[in-house]
Amino acid sequence: MLKSILLLTLIFMVAFPANVLAQENDSVQTAIWEKEFRSIPQPENLRSTMKLLSAHPHHVGSAYNKQNAEWILAKFKEWGWDAHVEIFDVLFPTPKERIVELVAPGSFIARLQEPPLAIDPTSSQHDEQLPTYNAYSIDGDVTALLVYVNYGLPEDYERLERMGISVKGCIVIARYGASWRGIKPKVAAEHGAVGCLIYSDPGGDGYSQGDVFPTGAFRPKDGVQRGSVMDMTLYPGDPLTPGVGATNHAKRLSINDVQTLTKIPVLPISYADAQPMLEALNGPVVPDGWRGALPMTYHIGPGNAKVHLKVSCNWDRKKIYDIIASLHGAQYPDEWIIRGNHYDAWVNGAEDPISGQVALLEEARAFGKLLQKGWKPKRTIVYCAWDGEEEGLLGSTEWAEEHADELKRKAALYINSDGNGRGYLSVSGSHSLEKFVNDVARSIQDPETKLSVWRRLQLQRISSSAADERKELRGQQMWRIGALGSGSDYTAFLDFLGIASINVGFSGEDDGGIYHSIYDDFYWYTHFSDTSFVYGCALSQTVGTAILRFADDNLLPFEFTNEAATIKRYTDEIQKLVSSKQDEIRERNQEIDEGMFTALADPKVKMIPPYKEEIPPYLNFAPLQNAVDALSKSAERYHRASMNISLETKKSFESVNQKLIECEQKLTSSEGLPGRPWFKHQIYAPGFYTGYGVKTIPAVREAIEQKQWKHAEEQISKVAVVLEEETAAIDAASKELENILRE
Amino acid sequence: MLKSILLLTLIFMVAFPANVLAQENDSVQTAIWEKEFRSIPQPENLRSTMKLLSAHPHHVGSAYNKQNAEWILAKFKEWGWDAHVEIFDVLFPTPKERIVELVAPGSFIARLQEPPLAIDPTSSQHDEQLPTYNAYSIDGDVTALLVYVNYGLPEDYERLERMGISVKGCIVIARYGASWRGIKPKVAAEHGAVGCLIYSDPGGDGYSQGDVFPTGAFRPKDGVQRGSVMDMTLYPGDPLTPGVGATNHAKRLSINDVQTLTKIPVLPISYADAQPMLEALNGPVVPDGWRGALPMTYHIGPGNAKVHLKVSCNWDRKKIYDIIASLHGAQYPDEWIIRGNHYDAWVNGAEDPISGQVALLEEARAFGKLLQKGWKPKRTIVYCAWDGEEEGLLGSTEWAEEHADELKRKAALYINSDGNGRGYLSVSGSHSLEKFVNDVARSIQDPETKLSVWRRLQLQRISSSAADERKELRGQQMWRIGALGSGSDYTAFLDFLGIASINVGFSGEDDGGIYHSIYDDFYWYTHFSDTSFVYGCALSQTVGTAILRFADDNLLPFEFTNEAATIKRYTDEIQKLVSSKQDEIRERNQEIDEGMFTALADPKVKMIPPYKEEIPPYLNFAPLQNAVDALSKSAERYHRASMNISLETKKSFESVNQKLIECEQKLTSSEGLPGRPWFKHQIYAPGFYTGYGVKTIPAVREAIEQKQWKHAEEQISKVAVVLEEETAAIDAASKELENILRE
Repeated sequence: MLKSILLLTLIFMVAFPANVLAQENDSVQTAIWEKEFRSIPQPENLRSTMKLLSAHPHHVGSAYNKQNAEWILAKFKEWGWDAHVEIFDVLFPTPKERIVELVAPGSFIARLQEPPLAIDPTSSQHDEQLPTYNAYSIDGDVTALLVYVNYGLPEDYERLERMGISVKGCIVIARYGASWRGIKPKVAAEHGAVGCLIYSDPGGDGYSQGDVFPTGAFRPKDGVQRGSVMDMTLYPGDPLTPGVGATNHAKRLSINDVQTLTKIPVLPISYADAQPMLEALNGPVVPDGWRGALPMTYHIGPGNAKVHLKVSCNWDRKKIYDIIASLHGAQYPDEWIIRGNHYDAWVNGAEDPISGQVALLEEARAFGKLLQKGWKPKRTIVYCAWDGEEEGLLGSTEWAEEHADELKRKAALYINSDGNGRGYLSVSGSHSLEKFVNDVARSIQDPETKLSVWRRLQLQRISSSAADERKELRGQQMWRIGALGSGSDYTAFLDFLGIASINVGFSGEDDGGIYHSIYDDFYWYTHFSDTSFVYGCALSQTVGTAILRFADDNLLPFEFTNEAATIKRYTDEIQKLVSSKQDEIRERNQEIDEGMFTALADPKVKMIPPYKEEIPPYLNFAPLQNAVDALSKSAERYHRASMNISLETKKSFESVNQKLIECEQKLTSSEGLPGRPWFKHQIYAPGFYTGYGVKTIPAVREAIEQKQWKHAEEQISKVAVVLEEETAAIDAASKELENILRE
Repeated sequence: MLKSILLLTLIFMVAFPANVLAQENDSVQTAIWEKEFRSIPQPENLRSTMKLLSAHPHHVGSAYNKQNAEWILAKFKEWGWDAHVEIFDVLFPTPKERIVELVAPGSFIARLQEPPLAIDPTSSQHDEQLPTYNAYSIDGDVTALLVYVNYGLPEDYERLERMGISVKGCIVIARYGASWRGIKPKVAAEHGAVGCLIYSDPGGDGYSQGDVFPTGAFRPKDGVQRGSVMDMTLYPGDPLTPGVGATNHAKRLSINDVQTLTKIPVLPISYADAQPMLEALNGPVVPDGWRGALPMTYHIGPGNAKVHLKVSCNWDRKKIYDIIASLHGAQYPDEWIIRGNHYDAWVNGAEDPISGQVALLEEARAFGKLLQKGWKPKRTIVYCAWDGEEEGLLGSTEWAEEHADELKRKAALYINSDGNGRGYLSVSGSHSLEKFVNDVARSIQDPETKLSVWRRLQLQRISSSAADERKELRGQQMWRIGALGSGSDYTAFLDFLGIASINVGFSGEDDGGIYHSIYDDFYWYTHFSDTSFVYGCALSQTVGTAILRFADDNLLPFEFTNEAATIKRYTDEIQKLVSSKQDEIRERNQEIDEGMFTALADPKVKMIPPYKEEIPPYLNFAPLQNAVDALSKSAERYHRASMNISLETKKSFESVNQKLIECEQKLTSSEGLPGRPWFKHQIYAPGFYTGYGVKTIPAVREAIEQKQWKHAEEQISKVAVVLEEETAAIDAASKELENILRE
């Protein structure tokens, strides 16, 4: 009976303008507004907005960035949003002098310059471009022997140690890839290096992967990846104001006390600049897996290749402009859904970040249209166009820090995007949102195949899975979402404030090598990426649908069984990590005893045998296991309760929602992670030695990775307490919900 | 009691010259001669012989090859061997004209020439060098579009088909590697190509692997891999005289009836010559795994890149000279142990084959020394220095064919080597010799580590094994030996005659890229390989020890439990092959049904979806399983019997030995493999689509690989019959042995 009434209503509603329809049923109404919303985004808008916003270089402090900020602000206002600008005052060094030269054998002066291309109109805006550099490198002037360190990860230095090679007093050259760039100078400095060069090997995103720009999408020989090397694993945002907003009156650290600058000077270089220096290296040939794609034999050094590296910067403070636009909630104005994407770029940044920013703006326009047709969000929607992301998530972090108390009370969700491309939906984030995200993805049509983006991604995952996993995947009605590390503006929301967050985008069908170079521009994007902007529209549709549901659902669509199952998986993983460390050390000790390393040594190759280590102790995982068990039960209880809500209910769940909003925050601890108190979340964090790459249950996992067994055991207990608080919070929400349903 | 007598004898014997000692105990005596033998090889002899034999190019038909033959013959005689030369008359084409040129876009004429290097004295002997070419390519003159086909394997063409690319009417360019070179033009022709270029990508053995010659050991840009492309998977040896010796009076095929020439013209080229042609290709970018290490984006074509390829040869017959030297057995002159290594080369061939030939000659000298001290082999030892191996195993094959009947009656063992380097013992061969080979390896000292070569190899295998295999390996007292495919002179002995064979060498610590080029010479070898010739001595010691034991042991040291276990493993493998084919096709059919390929298609990339196939039927493996079971029991019976031989026995086992010699032949069938009757062995054969690479139980395995299910089932029964005959032969030997022991 109910079903047929709904159906009739639906048919009726589709035929008539939405605003004249009766509001009989919330979910039907939401479905109609969603459909309406998804019909609004237009590729030509995305295209023209991208063309405008990427027409000139627009980094922090540039005239064009300011102009973009004003344009975006005006647009929000035009579309009916309550919009304003928030200004912060941040440390932003820009280069004064940059020298990289090979001084022996022979001499070679690196160009450090990306040439304009006749076919690409914005590539010639030389005077407006930031030079190629790594922001927040300290100043320095060093001349030293050069050593090639592969990706510059901790395990690369272990390998070097086995080969009897030290980088102490040397300048290292690392290739981009395998970790966030800031890890490379950090680990190099820990090993005594005095300088660091980071280059884009053509094996990574150059000719080896595909034709180079402008023939193809990949990095040309002089292309350079700019980027921040601020140690964001300690804290992101303005280096001078950790934990608080960088307002005019904020208390600031002296620059000498800042911990997030590099310890040694760093510069990024192109492969054209790197090749003569790499060719000058001698010493051992690199191990398998260390080879790049330059036409040469890669050697490690150090030999007699000596390099001069000089970096000096203007250590100025610059203003950044966050544009904050709100639609105030008609029913629950103090429950906020926040949506952000940055608009600043290293240069023209058509892909990074404008391809995401134009989707955000198109959503904002679409909401404006819905407002005109009579829609009003029940909850408050806050759209944010962030400034200063590239330098270290400055805009989002300072805003989140400045408004921390209010956000912790009110923010139910943060949705982020950054660049966007063609292909498959990619979502990572809080696992209490996993079911929600799956549901949204089922409603979005893939522009190329006309399947739902949910189905397309499911098939892609089945296709790329091992045979024994496929059967399970085929049976699953939900795919898993990834965990968030860092690298974009969700970081402060998730890791510092404990707000449930997701990061969304499309990718997988196009790739390229223009990241953070002058060639990431409108010409490149409209020739090699989402050239028809249909995936830009799909991103708008995906995020818009998510926001509509989150803004208008009576009960906030959190679901904790996925969260509990995921945390159980992480717990299993770290237990396995311990046993695999035990196995590994036990095996190596046995190999040392049986003379493996002397037997296999090639007298023509220098190799230091490993030393015996104590086998890791068994750790007490019981507190964590018990806590996970309790969490699972509690999640099941909430799940059962939420299943019993009648579709026709008129009841208000406001009191439940208030408790749900707190749940993600319960996963944080006020003292934060060991050694980096800014990071409060106990389930997700960027790895101390991976940077962007996530470490889950980081306090425990990283202690194990660092072989700090006692410390790991302490952290197990602390995480268990956090999970107990999460369990209690979910139970409180369940109790509240059960009470309401019982009334 | 016995033990202490033996010990005393041993001490006594070590102190006195071997020839004055009493012959109380055979095995002690053999141990003494072995020890004596192993003390004889001297690095400086190997070095000076290599210098002499590789002083000039010495390919089939060259003056210097003839001179080497005469020198080797004289040496055997000088050392007390009964030596003679056997001459065969074989088809050996040499180039008259070779052209490779890019005719569009632009133009480029390939150099097809390896330049001399000032530092390397023999590299300048241009007038004596064979040009770079692939012997037994047919003549041809074609101009066609070029297509890059990766390694040119059947699966590469499947991939091309999925991409909608046909090579029909095109010239293909394949990189060396992943299969024997002759497979590349064969598969290309099957797919309709009209010509084939094979080039040495620097990712294979060039700068990507290490510094190039003369700085390092790897292939310089103009280095070319010559080599035969005769279809040796049909039959090796003289193309005109399949199955019979190419004597003067042999009946010869007309050249038009020869099946082992290529179907299309082929030339090998350097990477310097390949690069402009590969750069001229357009069309899709190659898939992952198809990329080489040239500094460019690899494209497949065909675009507008057009190539002209011309090959024409002098189709002459040449004389080849096998040197055959014997030490006649004192007790069992009609039980032969044969030992061979070729001496002909493509150019100077210091590594291939002289590094093995000098070890063989040093063994021959050492046996001469033992003769002088009074040793006499019980069995006949036949040493063979083969000519014409490079062109298609000509010398060994023609000799084996010519003497087939006698060899089948008399030959107990064939031991082969070819090039030799530094590192680990490498042995492949008949599994009835697995235990024997392990025992020999335990007696040889590794020159670098002073461990036994057995132990060093065991540790290397443990080190390179997966964690779950290590425990088993550590417990094992025997490592496994590999199965023989083809690529050297054991082929006719094992595959055509069914003589138990092994191939022996040292390798793994040095590598290089001079294979079949003018740079495989004395300068290269003495700078980059076994520079102190200690592994050459180790090879002499290994083979000499094996021959002494095989020549003098009362009971020939065959052991069939390893053979049975190995054949059982192969049987399990091919059963798994069927079920994995079933799984694979079932999975693909399901993917087609669920729309995987349309869902994952990128509209910007051309991709032909696969088609549904019938799922392979279950095959009746029972005959093979039952036969393997019976074989295992029979092997156990022989093992038990042989364990009961008293160490002091004076009994003769001649009648058992005669039966043992027959055992390997029982693994052959007179009709040979389907479609290639020359290959008689039913357990080992070079793969029809791998060339050198072995296929075990080839008739069944290849039928399954080719999806010929009915045919596979027929072959299962045939192999089962062969195994039943093997079982009967082993039982006959057991019975004989049991009878003797009972007497």
